[in-house]
Amino acid sequence: MRKIAILGIGQTAIAEQWDKSLRVLAGEAVLAALADAGRDRADGLFVGNMLSGLLNRQENLAALVTDWVGLRGTEAVKVEAACGSGAAALRAGLMAVAAGEMDSAVVVGVEKMTDTAGAQTTAALATAADADWEAAQGLSFVAINALVMRRYMHEYGWQHADFAPFSINAHANALHNPYARLHDPITPQDYQRARMVADPINLLDASPIGDGAAALVLVPAEHVRRNGRPAVHVAGSAAATDSLAVHDRRDPLWLSAAYDSARKAYGQAGAGPGDIQIFELHDAFSIMAALSLEACGFAARGQGPRLGLDGEIGPGGRVPIATRGGLKARGHPVGATGVYQIVEIVQQLRGEAGATQVPGQPRLGMAQNIGGSGATILTHILKAN
Amino acid sequence: MRKIAILGIGQTAIAEQWDKSLRVLAGEAVLAALADAGRDRADGLFVGNMLSGLLNRQENLAALVTDWVGLRGTEAVKVEAACGSGAAALRAGLMAVAAGEMDSAVVVGVEKMTDTAGAQTTAALATAADADWEAAQGLSFVAINALVMRRYMHEYGWQHADFAPFSINAHANALHNPYARLHDPITPQDYQRARMVADPINLLDASPIGDGAAALVLVPAEHVRRNGRPAVHVAGSAAATDSLAVHDRRDPLWLSAAYDSARKAYGQAGAGPGDIQIFELHDAFSIMAALSLEACGFAARGQGPRLGLDGEIGPGGRVPIATRGGLKARGHPVGATGVYQIVEIVQQLRGEAGATQVPGQPRLGMAQNIGGSGATILTHILKAN
Repeated sequence: MRKIAILGIGQTAIAEQWDKSLRVLAGEAVLAALADAGRDRADGLFVGNMLSGLLNRQENLAALVTDWVGLRGTEAVKVEAACGSGAAALRAGLMAVAAGEMDSAVVVGVEKMTDTAGAQTTAALATAADADWEAAQGLSFVAINALVMRRYMHEYGWQHADFAPFSINAHANALHNPYARLHDPITPQDYQRARMVADPINLLDASPIGDGAAALVLVPAEHVRRNGRPAVHVAGSAAATDSLAVHDRRDPLWLSAAYDSARKAYGQAGAGPGDIQIFELHDAFSIMAALSLEACGFAARGQGPRLGLDGEIGPGGRVPIATRGGLKARGHPVGATGVYQIVEIVQQLRGEAGATQVPGQPRLGMAQNIGGSGATILTHILKAN
Repeated sequence: MRKIAILGIGQTAIAEQWDKSLRVLAGEAVLAALADAGRDRADGLFVGNMLSGLLNRQENLAALVTDWVGLRGTEAVKVEAACGSGAAALRAGLMAVAAGEMDSAVVVGVEKMTDTAGAQTTAALATAADADWEAAQGLSFVAINALVMRRYMHEYGWQHADFAPFSINAHANALHNPYARLHDPITPQDYQRARMVADPINLLDASPIGDGAAALVLVPAEHVRRNGRPAVHVAGSAAATDSLAVHDRRDPLWLSAAYDSARKAYGQAGAGPGDIQIFELHDAFSIMAALSLEACGFAARGQGPRLGLDGEIGPGGRVPIATRGGLKARGHPVGATGVYQIVEIVQQLRGEAGATQVPGQPRLGMAQNIGGSGATILTHILKAN
């Protein structure tokens, strides 16, 4: 596989962007990424998106975006893996450039979720779960995660308050990210008193949806001309799956697809959890942050919350997570999230992360994007050279 | 790019399969393709599907299918390009194997469309068009194609009856395909008297939707052991796009993405239209058969219907099309169609096409899959060795 560099990044704010259509949001991110890369075209465009059909009545989205950004004619496709669609689009773009089928690719994750009624959005998000065996029982997506969190607390003896550091850290970091959905610092008291959504998940355990887009420009590493800032390469890229329904898994508290994809990505990068200096994980719910930390080797099984309680997850800690706000406070425009994570790792590796910059010129960052409650998981490791 | 072989094929009948869920349909095709390939696993699974979210309330479809066929854990993703989703999934699988990221891949196209009310399906299919500028005007997908056909007849002086050979040939060939949706031969009189759908497109200009799945097993060519039947390789694979809305195109009667993708595929295969012995084109409507023949160099501009009138499109003709029934009579389970086309080319190149076998041991076949009214078009050329 050819070595691939991420030459440009772009993103829109995550917000209720009622004045911008799907194509306009995607276009802003794509054009920003191309400008950042110093390019005006690419050989292919890969769109990560989950819900454009259900919420925006628009499929064939990749051709639409390609025309809108001035690249009419260019090869384009949409990739879907529920909330893992963004990283799945990145991986499709990586393979296209690696195969030599193209010499550059734009990857854009986009989602527009706030124009529709809440009940419709909740029903649409439930399509990430097993339609016949989970959603058909009336389980919303948050309810599925609530069952997992309750079981985890029971098995390992954690209290709800023990998960507070995940959300507090995310909100604190998002304060310094102008693209983030939420700019409200929260206290342990806020966390404990938040309105219940699906017991034990309350409003401050759950990430907010939003409208937004993020984009990347990929090129073969040998095409990168040094221009004074660190070049960022893809050192590892892997995907794995697990059963879609939680009740079909061998262990509902173990993200086997996170373990498998991280193991492969570590192998490709010649690194292990001890080498990773930033970890943008998929904290759609606080329980998922704990489970990802465990499956990727940062914490022992059942001990994910310990890292937060020990103060290890901030930008200066041992395992900095959600450094730009994470899903919890940057926001979670579902099919775009995986691309936002990569954009944020690039910001960190370039030293462009401002007040939440991980100190000491970090060289290795990891992103993990999850589709469904753990069914499709992609892990990418980026390296600054 | 590594040379890739298609080692196995599988398909289900296209019908109203109300007793089979989405995963069951996909699973039947995948297991048939693996059995045909003599394999019991693959390194990745690529699903082509357009409407599982809108019609089946199921996204994250690739993880679901992967678990169902006994490949839990295996990397999997869904690819969407409207009715071009099947060939887009093939192309994603090809690039993954070509990049060396995996040594085998299963590609499955699946769609389940007949469990829902007709109006819902019509609205879902309209998501292949521009939601803001076409569907928002109340144009259904067939209405968009009707506008194109009417304009074509006006510009080039054809009568409706001149398109009859496309549908008659498709129905005649489908008679001999046990997997086809329709097994009714039709006459020129039937064609002319059929019920109008959207003037000038009548029921016998339009392909029927259906439930079905088709699958392929891809491996690097060097892994193929000769077993007495011709090996089938991918000699060309290309994709291109055009504006999504017909009114945004430079010429509404020219499929520029068909031209671009065919030109690239011809170049890769070192072949031209004169070398292609079978052409499975995207005859979702009879007008699209004419436009594809022209854009791919089989007919002069505006002269597509001539090939049918001259008797050149049957299995023994100069340009055999729809040899297993085409979209018109084999049926059009939209996201699966592009994979059915490839399965059918493989049948022809292996000499397994029975009564509609193209004579003389054909060695070169082409398939073209179209998403939307011409926005995303993929062309593949297969070669028997």
